[in-house]
Amino acid sequence: MFITQSDIVVIGGSAAGVAAAITAHRQYPDKNVLLLRKDRQALIACGIPYIFGTIGTPEKNLMPDDVLESDEIKIVTGEATKIDTRKRLIEVDNHDTIGYKRLVIATGSYPAMPPIPGFALENIVVPSKDIAMLSEFQGRLKQVKDLIVIGGGFKGVELADECRKAGVENVTIVELLPYCMASSFDEEFGAAAEEALKKRGINLKTGAKVRGFIGRDKVEKVVLAGGEELKADAVIISVGVVADVKLAKETGLKLGATGAIAVDRYMKTSNPHIFACGDCAEKISFFGGRPSPQKLPSMAAFEARIAGANLFGTRRENIGAIGVLSTVIGDFALASAGLTEHMAEQAGYDYVTGSAQGPNRYPVCMPGAENVKIKFVFERRTGVLLGGQLMGGRAVGEMINVVSACIQKKMTYDDIAAFQIGTHPALTASPVAYQLVDAAEMALKETAQTFRR
Amino acid sequence: MFITQSDIVVIGGSAAGVAAAITAHRQYPDKNVLLLRKDRQALIACGIPYIFGTIGTPEKNLMPDDVLESDEIKIVTGEATKIDTRKRLIEVDNHDTIGYKRLVIATGSYPAMPPIPGFALENIVVPSKDIAMLSEFQGRLKQVKDLIVIGGGFKGVELADECRKAGVENVTIVELLPYCMASSFDEEFGAAAEEALKKRGINLKTGAKVRGFIGRDKVEKVVLAGGEELKADAVIISVGVVADVKLAKETGLKLGATGAIAVDRYMKTSNPHIFACGDCAEKISFFGGRPSPQKLPSMAAFEARIAGANLFGTRRENIGAIGVLSTVIGDFALASAGLTEHMAEQAGYDYVTGSAQGPNRYPVCMPGAENVKIKFVFERRTGVLLGGQLMGGRAVGEMINVVSACIQKKMTYDDIAAFQIGTHPALTASPVAYQLVDAAEMALKETAQTFRR
Repeated sequence: MFITQSDIVVIGGSAAGVAAAITAHRQYPDKNVLLLRKDRQALIACGIPYIFGTIGTPEKNLMPDDVLESDEIKIVTGEATKIDTRKRLIEVDNHDTIGYKRLVIATGSYPAMPPIPGFALENIVVPSKDIAMLSEFQGRLKQVKDLIVIGGGFKGVELADECRKAGVENVTIVELLPYCMASSFDEEFGAAAEEALKKRGINLKTGAKVRGFIGRDKVEKVVLAGGEELKADAVIISVGVVADVKLAKETGLKLGATGAIAVDRYMKTSNPHIFACGDCAEKISFFGGRPSPQKLPSMAAFEARIAGANLFGTRRENIGAIGVLSTVIGDFALASAGLTEHMAEQAGYDYVTGSAQGPNRYPVCMPGAENVKIKFVFERRTGVLLGGQLMGGRAVGEMINVVSACIQKKMTYDDIAAFQIGTHPALTASPVAYQLVDAAEMALKETAQTFRR
Repeated sequence: MFITQSDIVVIGGSAAGVAAAITAHRQYPDKNVLLLRKDRQALIACGIPYIFGTIGTPEKNLMPDDVLESDEIKIVTGEATKIDTRKRLIEVDNHDTIGYKRLVIATGSYPAMPPIPGFALENIVVPSKDIAMLSEFQGRLKQVKDLIVIGGGFKGVELADECRKAGVENVTIVELLPYCMASSFDEEFGAAAEEALKKRGINLKTGAKVRGFIGRDKVEKVVLAGGEELKADAVIISVGVVADVKLAKETGLKLGATGAIAVDRYMKTSNPHIFACGDCAEKISFFGGRPSPQKLPSMAAFEARIAGANLFGTRRENIGAIGVLSTVIGDFALASAGLTEHMAEQAGYDYVTGSAQGPNRYPVCMPGAENVKIKFVFERRTGVLLGGQLMGGRAVGEMINVVSACIQKKMTYDDIAAFQIGTHPALTASPVAYQLVDAAEMALKETAQTFRR
């Protein structure tokens, strides 16, 4: 047994772990930092769907170690099997022991696997961060003619689109909710996404529950609740992820209402020397402070930057999870931040929406002009922004971060209507019709009747 | 003489006038709005350089009237010649008279024309919003082999790049300051812009003062202060704009320190019924509240949205001009918001900078990956963001609006380091190395030594 001593130990080599290690090193340059990860190199979570079509192989989708400024952060490959919180020691499966002053748990999540009858048949996969498994499935994909993707969330949509791009003839998404990506977008955005998917040759079965899988050894059919049978050479299941709390539970750390590790506003767990962040840590919503099941790599990195800063003193506070994401189908990008109209309604907000659309170039004859649509959801009485959705050209991937800033700083209709934007004919909408500003004005116009007489 | 009566009259058909009219109509739906403009249709200011290469003709660069929701805003073509502030009447050159309850002056600016000896020679132009003049010059450009652009601000750079694109063989920018776009960018950004210009075949003479123009009838040479002579078939002068305050001055409105119309935080002039916005109105800097000579169409629209909202009651306050702009040379975009390092130094701030760069896709093998560099300037002691500069792919045109939001809401190092970003492999940088967050962390790392022990 060999004992390594480190001021700061981070368990987990994905977005949260890496960001926590970098932050800890930057914030406490005189402390040494050790990153313990299961695999010699971790896959980039967001890149997994793109392995099948755009990227080509899992090996091209690895987290580069240079972000770890690796000469200063020690990387150890191994799995933590036990934590002794009294002695502050971690047992590793390679028989080493690592001592810590502060520990960050970033063990992430694993894909949810609903117990659908027949799920053990061959050619049914649940994509995880496993290079060998992804490679193997990618090889099989060449023989697949009929592929069913179960789950029409943004990850399922991306997987379907990439498998189609890889040459699979019939790709069908089966989604339980009435439209795709319903947990991030309102119906008009979901409908536009579905239109884009259909144009790319993807079939959709929405509002459809899977009853089971049928086949001899390999899967042959997917049976829906109504009795309909869909031909299938292969099935991808993508219905979300589950917090990996095995180690935390065994260590005796408290879990929260969603089953993830309970943390306070500073990302500290129930043990004063242990922090948690990322998919394994419970999220508190920015809107109302209730536990939220949302899990996103960008949210993991955000939490990691708070955890890493607070290890030896409180420096940053978690204002609560907003949830900012984007995706793209062909060249049609969609992005969402905060609450959709549907979510605001469910949460009981008295809200008002404002929408605007227009070209992202001016005059419209400028090359590259694409229509960009935005929808804002504001709390009616205070005018505070609750959420925004965008669709159009690829720049919406950055525009959503403007929306995120507006939500974080609780900007109101009037703040956004008088936002100081930069515009350029070849890069953005016109200063007179910039979509964000216009959407805020439209919401204001609607409320003007009520409040401004 | 025919008298028209309107609750709200806006004088000026460019960005400020149009945005003021739209805002007034949206904010006061029961008031009628009249827009008085000199030309039947106004040119889009930002689009003028693009007429020469990308767009092709001035007629394709007109402000579309549909943004005016024109069935509800009355448009009158004519020039205001006199304002009777006691009777609240405007005399128009077409002999009509227009009565108002509230007036917005948005008469804009005209190009500065430095009195350089020889400036009256043929083929020396100062591009203004004059369709006939621009068309005429565009025709002549076909015969031009040696073109000198005087002024290497972003407008001069765009004009030079577009004339080169239109086929002019030798295009040379002559700039007084040590590098191009020095009033918006620090030297490393200016150097990168100059590199991009050189790659596009444009010659640069920086730190060079023009002494005069030589020629028989047409210009033949540009003479620099050091005696050097540059061959020239044509010269474009682009050295900034001057507030058009003729009408305001004759009306007896107070002017400010920069010579533009003095306005308060609500865009009201010295007359209680008259507001002003855009290039003709004086700007107060967001940083320290001093008068600022900056003039930008996006700033004009921002002010117009304040003026238009406050006509019959105070609804919005001008927090001061930040100055957000972007431009693009080929596919290389640059953007700036707030103070550069040089400006912060000049203004006497104790500041710290933080820079970061990296690909705007992840993993880097994703198609479309381009390097994006950002530089932040923070006030050292408070950590408040003073400015940001960006360069790289076209998405920096939207990223700069994230920076603008951070400046407007006085976000600090820590706020930005814990910014809730949305990321996607095909649209942005990775969640672990998002440039804005990383640059804030780098500034923090630098200050950590001082403040965090």
